[in-house]
Amino acid sequence: MVKRTQPYVPGEQINEEHILKLNTNENPYPPSPMVAKAIIQEMDKGLHYYPTPTVEKLRQTIAKQNGLTENQVFIGNGSDEVLAFSFMAFFKPSKRIQFPTVTYSFYPVYAKLFDIPYIEVPLNEDFTIQPEAFFNSEGGVILANPNAPTSIYAEIEHIELILQNNSENVVIIDEAYIDFATTSAMTLIEAYPNLVVVQTTSKSRSLAGLRVGYAMGNPSLIEALFRIKDSFNSYTIDRLAIAGALAAFEDENYFKETTSKIITTREVLVEKLKRIGFDILPSQTNFVFITHEKVTAVELYQELKKERILTRHFRDPVIQNHLRVTIGTDEQMHKLMDTIKQIIG
Amino acid sequence: MVKRTQPYVPGEQINEEHILKLNTNENPYPPSPMVAKAIIQEMDKGLHYYPTPTVEKLRQTIAKQNGLTENQVFIGNGSDEVLAFSFMAFFKPSKRIQFPTVTYSFYPVYAKLFDIPYIEVPLNEDFTIQPEAFFNSEGGVILANPNAPTSIYAEIEHIELILQNNSENVVIIDEAYIDFATTSAMTLIEAYPNLVVVQTTSKSRSLAGLRVGYAMGNPSLIEALFRIKDSFNSYTIDRLAIAGALAAFEDENYFKETTSKIITTREVLVEKLKRIGFDILPSQTNFVFITHEKVTAVELYQELKKERILTRHFRDPVIQNHLRVTIGTDEQMHKLMDTIKQIIG
Repeated sequence: MVKRTQPYVPGEQINEEHILKLNTNENPYPPSPMVAKAIIQEMDKGLHYYPTPTVEKLRQTIAKQNGLTENQVFIGNGSDEVLAFSFMAFFKPSKRIQFPTVTYSFYPVYAKLFDIPYIEVPLNEDFTIQPEAFFNSEGGVILANPNAPTSIYAEIEHIELILQNNSENVVIIDEAYIDFATTSAMTLIEAYPNLVVVQTTSKSRSLAGLRVGYAMGNPSLIEALFRIKDSFNSYTIDRLAIAGALAAFEDENYFKETTSKIITTREVLVEKLKRIGFDILPSQTNFVFITHEKVTAVELYQELKKERILTRHFRDPVIQNHLRVTIGTDEQMHKLMDTIKQIIG
Repeated sequence: MVKRTQPYVPGEQINEEHILKLNTNENPYPPSPMVAKAIIQEMDKGLHYYPTPTVEKLRQTIAKQNGLTENQVFIGNGSDEVLAFSFMAFFKPSKRIQFPTVTYSFYPVYAKLFDIPYIEVPLNEDFTIQPEAFFNSEGGVILANPNAPTSIYAEIEHIELILQNNSENVVIIDEAYIDFATTSAMTLIEAYPNLVVVQTTSKSRSLAGLRVGYAMGNPSLIEALFRIKDSFNSYTIDRLAIAGALAAFEDENYFKETTSKIITTREVLVEKLKRIGFDILPSQTNFVFITHEKVTAVELYQELKKERILTRHFRDPVIQNHLRVTIGTDEQMHKLMDTIKQIIG
């Protein structure tokens, strides 16, 4: 009577007190104080009225900050919804798409849900991608950049080569962590009408609790996303999420300040971890992907959990000896380092 | 490069001042004052953390109020998302489903989006449904009850007959307006494992701006909805929407008071409209579906719009001479009556 699917499994959401959550790459800093103000103001306008189905003002603001126009921006209920709509809008059940073997584990879930065939392309030994392996795909490409959970950033020149060699298909660059990296593929939007860049407010904007993601690309691709959305759910973003996200984008200073704090904390943590024997992939995200020769990742995960520090471990054989650890505040990272030192002795 | 679809067109959302919006069946009363309190409290917990992906507490509360258990309740980002997931979970591209010719115009949109074939079943002349016409469907049935935009309620005995005669298929009863009617099909959930009842907080709970809908049914059907959701978007309901909806369900007195006010206002309006020559379908919703022999519905729509009163007109030939008008406050209905009297002279 019902459709069979293989759902994505998100990180544990444990709401106990005194747990240090370093497992779902949330921002350790709360959102800009302007967010709460904007939400309270929006409530006064009346929650009994529907939100705007087209979210113009937020799209205009995001467009303006990125040198785009409103019709190049789509808003979704978290970037996961944007990705789901993108699979529906751009990929077809008759043509194989491509993504790396090690990447955001939601991609094969979407593909199965919408009956889209796919090829998982192996990474190099150092977990980087081989651009040529994504050339001339049958049905399109989706790449997380920086990649998750590896934290590795693919150079923009490599992304451009992949776009050039997929001119008949859509290439989705999923940039959930881009604000902790060097350059967004956004700068390629004008030149490549087959490019969709997906970003989120859940990481660098500290709004995981509000669910606002967005896509940027050629107006014809954005229009296609709206057609899917309007065939699925007219009002996907609620009034408070719109108001809160808008305030977060407007407070650019706060965003720059917290983002650069996280990057600094990351670099300090990486040095400290290296000093006690960890091997760490070069991170351009708000997390690190680490491995140690004396303790397995699963042991480290379990020992940290006993000490009420949650991290994320993946069972995939290629990465089963790596642990993904979210960058927190300096204080949280001190606690993490102290605990890790005790564990590895 | 992109998928073609035929989107749903929602009612106009005009944000000008001094417009009387009677076109999208919003509640004229703001939500319970407890809602804003709960939202402000939730903000203090930190919007930088993800919401719960399983929304336990809200499901438990809705379950308890309806004599069900948590595993019989699913929450979605508005009842439109619940309906979209239901089409994905319960209906198949190989088997024709059935719904009335005149009903919520999103049903054929979902069917086309997911390639599900359908039969549109004609209504009786008085706009009621013929239960037998929905017996032994190939792939399932979806019925809005009360129906929109007709406002007509199908007796629970008729719903039960349809369930009995579709035991191999899922029957979805979309009860967006049920709190303004007599009896919910919820009471049939224990007896019929093929029943899914969909409700919303957008109408009777005054939370159109927050986007929270829900489905109730057999645990195996609810589990199927979760499998789709978890293959689509892990976190569909944001922290503030969860907190606000919870507060709205907890304040039962406020809900009963505002709902009964709207029903009283509706009955008074119906009497007044009848007295000036309107024919009105028997409404068990927060809107009326009206027609007048001296003025066409489209003229009335246009004249009301000139006077800054928005109503909803549909182009479907069967109902093109009816106008859908949302029930507002008594004061708003006085203004409506005065304006209508001027128009029809």
